[in-house]
Amino acid sequence: MCVNIIGIKKIPLIKEGDNLAEIIINNADDEGIEICNEDIIVIAETAVAKAEGNVIDLKSLNPSQNAMEISKKTGKNANLVEAIIRESTDIIKLGPNFIICETKHGFICANAGIDESNIEHGFATPIPTNPDKSADQIRKKIETLTEKDVAVIISDTQGRPFREGAVGVAIGISGMESLWNQEGKLDLYGRELQTTQTAVSDELASAASIVMGQASEGIPVVIIRGVDYFKILRNNSANSKPLLRPKEYDVFR
Amino acid sequence: MCVNIIGIKKIPLIKEGDNLAEIIINNADDEGIEICNEDIIVIAETAVAKAEGNVIDLKSLNPSQNAMEISKKTGKNANLVEAIIRESTDIIKLGPNFIICETKHGFICANAGIDESNIEHGFATPIPTNPDKSADQIRKKIETLTEKDVAVIISDTQGRPFREGAVGVAIGISGMESLWNQEGKLDLYGRELQTTQTAVSDELASAASIVMGQASEGIPVVIIRGVDYFKILRNNSANSKPLLRPKEYDVFR
Repeated sequence: MCVNIIGIKKIPLIKEGDNLAEIIINNADDEGIEICNEDIIVIAETAVAKAEGNVIDLKSLNPSQNAMEISKKTGKNANLVEAIIRESTDIIKLGPNFIICETKHGFICANAGIDESNIEHGFATPIPTNPDKSADQIRKKIETLTEKDVAVIISDTQGRPFREGAVGVAIGISGMESLWNQEGKLDLYGRELQTTQTAVSDELASAASIVMGQASEGIPVVIIRGVDYFKILRNNSANSKPLLRPKEYDVFR
Repeated sequence: MCVNIIGIKKIPLIKEGDNLAEIIINNADDEGIEICNEDIIVIAETAVAKAEGNVIDLKSLNPSQNAMEISKKTGKNANLVEAIIRESTDIIKLGPNFIICETKHGFICANAGIDESNIEHGFATPIPTNPDKSADQIRKKIETLTEKDVAVIISDTQGRPFREGAVGVAIGISGMESLWNQEGKLDLYGRELQTTQTAVSDELASAASIVMGQASEGIPVVIIRGVDYFKILRNNSANSKPLLRPKEYDVFR
């Protein structure tokens, strides 16, 4: 049993209006990689935000009074704080050089997921407006062009409470379930499993991150091949919402 | 660029005293898989706990007054609660059917990581006493027997705050760093990276989990091959401690 994590190396720098589906297929083809049935294609969110023209010109923002105050408390640039506030529905925790927010999408993450890496100086990329919709559009285009059944995951790199270091997580998905609910399934001794929900889409995003790297490697697209639960979790109307724990069940808020 | 996640399928049910290093090498060999230089071998913690005879007979425990009270509050079996208390240094949050603890190792997780799956009824496996030491012993045996340089990760499946579903995480490591600190490294545009610490060992544990499954598949050992940062992070005295965020920096306690 073997799963392959295949990095597509020669993806060019993405710019507004680029057709990611075509770029992925063509660049994979240039490297002798054909998209196959059941491939799970993981795309770094920065590439999606850029293709969608979702780029913030930080200098153009006029920091509010609130942004100025948070800037003072955190030591973060006031224009960046203004951008963070605009992307957030709630500021959860503040401190020296960190702002943890709930984004418009419902993600709890540092800086509302706004990324100043891999973009020109003075600019930043927010999380795509609707990562599930982006994933869906890219998946459908890839499926039309290749006539293969695939899934698409939009990934981000996020920190976690309690554990140091960031890991890849899924912020958008199309073509398969984000969570694998194995309620009622039995273990090696015929007993019902205790851990019934596995965040497979987050595990896939983490696996992709092993190949993507975070720096100048520039591998924003990774194909994961050979995942045996693809068929079980195949769902054309699934999205990433099940990954978000409802506020009322979150004991760490 | 391709990373392979290779499940070793025919590992027998592990029992006390089993030599995991030999079992891994022999079963891999039976499937035509030879251990290679730079292989990262991920082992499910239940297999390690069982091989080390670290199994709790729940019936033998005498629940304390405190265990009885927590059992009442959470609805969990009092003997299991007693086992959880004994494995913990701190109870962080309680609620209907959940107890989040800090374990003796410093991990913050549900039920102190005590697992009632994949073990005979009435028994449970705690997290191995010293997963870094376990990883180290297994790695050294594998390296001696194969004359290859490898890393070993002991993995667990844990839930997270804010996000639904459990994911694979590293609870012990030997042979390579658990975190990749990329401070000073530049992005595609020559700017310093913002996300400087990646929890590579957690990402590798999540990648392994894709193949391990959680139920009756019974694939407790996975080889990850082709990870290009192996050489950079090679360190014979590394452990999992850098993954634990110090209490004073954890804003969610």
